[in-house]
Amino acid sequence: MSNGIKITDGGVCAPRGFTAGGIHCGIRKNRNKRDLSVIYSSVRAEAAAVYTTNLVKGAPLLVTKRHLADGKAQAVVCNSGNANTCNADGVQVAEKMCGLTADALGISPEDVVVASTGVIGVPLDIAPIASGLPELAQKQGNHSDEAAEGIMTTDTKLKQISVSFTAGGKECRIGGIAKGSGMIHPNMATMLVFITSDCAISSQMLQRALSTDIQNTFNMVSIDGDTSTNDMVVVLANGLAGNTTIEAEGDDFSAFMQALNTVTVYLCKCIAGDGEGATKLIECSVSGAASEQAAKTAAKSVICSSLVKAAMFGADANWGRVLCAIGYSGAQIDVNAVDVSFRSAAGRVEVCRSGAGVEFSEPLAKSVLSEDEITIEVRLNSGECSAVAWGCDLTYDYVKINGDYRT
Amino acid sequence: MSNGIKITDGGVCAPRGFTAGGIHCGIRKNRNKRDLSVIYSSVRAEAAAVYTTNLVKGAPLLVTKRHLADGKAQAVVCNSGNANTCNADGVQVAEKMCGLTADALGISPEDVVVASTGVIGVPLDIAPIASGLPELAQKQGNHSDEAAEGIMTTDTKLKQISVSFTAGGKECRIGGIAKGSGMIHPNMATMLVFITSDCAISSQMLQRALSTDIQNTFNMVSIDGDTSTNDMVVVLANGLAGNTTIEAEGDDFSAFMQALNTVTVYLCKCIAGDGEGATKLIECSVSGAASEQAAKTAAKSVICSSLVKAAMFGADANWGRVLCAIGYSGAQIDVNAVDVSFRSAAGRVEVCRSGAGVEFSEPLAKSVLSEDEITIEVRLNSGECSAVAWGCDLTYDYVKINGDYRT
Repeated sequence: MSNGIKITDGGVCAPRGFTAGGIHCGIRKNRNKRDLSVIYSSVRAEAAAVYTTNLVKGAPLLVTKRHLADGKAQAVVCNSGNANTCNADGVQVAEKMCGLTADALGISPEDVVVASTGVIGVPLDIAPIASGLPELAQKQGNHSDEAAEGIMTTDTKLKQISVSFTAGGKECRIGGIAKGSGMIHPNMATMLVFITSDCAISSQMLQRALSTDIQNTFNMVSIDGDTSTNDMVVVLANGLAGNTTIEAEGDDFSAFMQALNTVTVYLCKCIAGDGEGATKLIECSVSGAASEQAAKTAAKSVICSSLVKAAMFGADANWGRVLCAIGYSGAQIDVNAVDVSFRSAAGRVEVCRSGAGVEFSEPLAKSVLSEDEITIEVRLNSGECSAVAWGCDLTYDYVKINGDYRT
Repeated sequence: MSNGIKITDGGVCAPRGFTAGGIHCGIRKNRNKRDLSVIYSSVRAEAAAVYTTNLVKGAPLLVTKRHLADGKAQAVVCNSGNANTCNADGVQVAEKMCGLTADALGISPEDVVVASTGVIGVPLDIAPIASGLPELAQKQGNHSDEAAEGIMTTDTKLKQISVSFTAGGKECRIGGIAKGSGMIHPNMATMLVFITSDCAISSQMLQRALSTDIQNTFNMVSIDGDTSTNDMVVVLANGLAGNTTIEAEGDDFSAFMQALNTVTVYLCKCIAGDGEGATKLIECSVSGAASEQAAKTAAKSVICSSLVKAAMFGADANWGRVLCAIGYSGAQIDVNAVDVSFRSAAGRVEVCRSGAGVEFSEPLAKSVLSEDEITIEVRLNSGECSAVAWGCDLTYDYVKINGDYRT
């Protein structure tokens, strides 16, 4: 890692002053799956967040937005199993969750971030949450893994990471947990990401760092093109690393941005590779674009194409679909200049040069595309800009998971 | 049917002066599947066309565009099994197809419309086409069904219709054939539609009629969100009905538009219901929108949502996904005013009123959603505009068809 960024253990509890935990409180029937998580900072932290652009917004987002208006927060509470969205009493229930969390932790309700993920349109019963929160507050500790499990729905893998880096001569840390797509009673593929840091940084610069970073990270992930009603990325930074507070751009801000990006790119790949029904992480890397926007638009179009995704599932080097997806993306490109290759741990195979097919070894292509992580390399040969997008293959299990009944 | 529009037999051969036919010439290995079709008018016809907006365009489209620059055509030649796209010699081969067709029919090559559908990036061998065309020209006749079969790929049903109507006191006819999505060696879900008419109408008015109509018909169909490189809708009108030529708006133009719309809406439903792997036709009908654009945007977003499509496959009344898709569509709507119902031959069930769930009978919902044709009714309650979009469910077979190897 460059600039002294090191991967560490501890997830969201790696930064100083943060504890976390998760329990099964009873929202889900399966007693072996935690369904309520709390992350807590021993001091009030600077906070920044980004939310879904869906006009239909979950009630928890509305409450969180209000609570973060002052750029401060001290705890995150999140349940899985119910999205608390499209319910008449949604905001009221979300506020109760904050109040109960605040009571249990001895902090102000306005300093609580609340999130929910799960089925929408079903009222969320506050009772199991009310009875679970005191226990959850009590057992707060170095339990990032419990918190990561508590926010999972049909995710098959825990998603957490932490890194250390240096800012103003002090060692700082950033940790994150995330959930991707899928539910036992499937509904929205909500994406939730909670990031903690002990770096001292103003809430304005924290928001700027997050808003900048997500353009190249979470906004470049697509599982199925459906933008959830409950997506949320929140960062809390409590300053306990003792560095001089970052209040402007400069070396320290760059170091923070780079460490944050290490955390977010890792979580993006986790989310994409563990998409509903996915068997493979698909990365599309576009270079040589005339503008960054063209690169992003082309990369995302490839990742979102159902036909490309199905071909990747079948390990089929059907490069025409890649070209087709670039062609309808809306990006201004010269189709006669496009090169396409597939790359993975098994090797690299060029399949298209200057917009036309080249002869290639089908067995090699098959072995390249049979790996778990595949990169689709696209060179547009018309500029210097590049972009990367992450997605997954389209499988029988995606249909199965999402065709099943809610109840 | 209003305004004297009657459904008739005959497909593209119903209008006077049109013949058609299809043969197996050898592009496909399966000898039981026709792979080359010709439609012919005994006199030069006015012609209008619309093409894919994909920047990657099949070579046949480039040649057809040039041939239709004068607004005249006399024949259509179309092969399945190979899209003749992204090949270095594509334009040359498409021109040869026109030349051979013209020779066989004794017309000018510039009056031939050429189209291809199938795998892209594989050179199209002209030999089987060259040897097949003389036979195909010879056996031209009242064979709309043969022509409709010759353009099919993995389509499971023939798609053809014809109607008669009155313009200027004369009986006129419009016929059409179409192919939807799918290939034996699957690749692009090319949509091809060929429409014939014996109505006398100028090429300018014909183009205006077509360009207006497709906004509410073919542009409101989505199988998988992938816009093909080879999509094309062509109308030929040869004037043999003997009506006074339609050269401006008025009653005759309205009658023509309405008859054309009857043909195109029917073909849209055929294409959507026979999408790759589809088991159901899904119609989304949006009313009460503040603008026509908002209605269209919302309807199309619902039809395109993978999560909605998978829920329809599973007969799951998961209305939250419908609301979610409307929410991220980009249409300006009041989410708290939205009503949603599901309707089919088995009945109607309201599931959401004013943006929140209402109690409904799950067995009724299940039986409504178990039909072959389902309408998702959305009332936005914020205006007078409406729109309809057509799609299909997302099934295991879609993944199977598109995950299979090309070879």
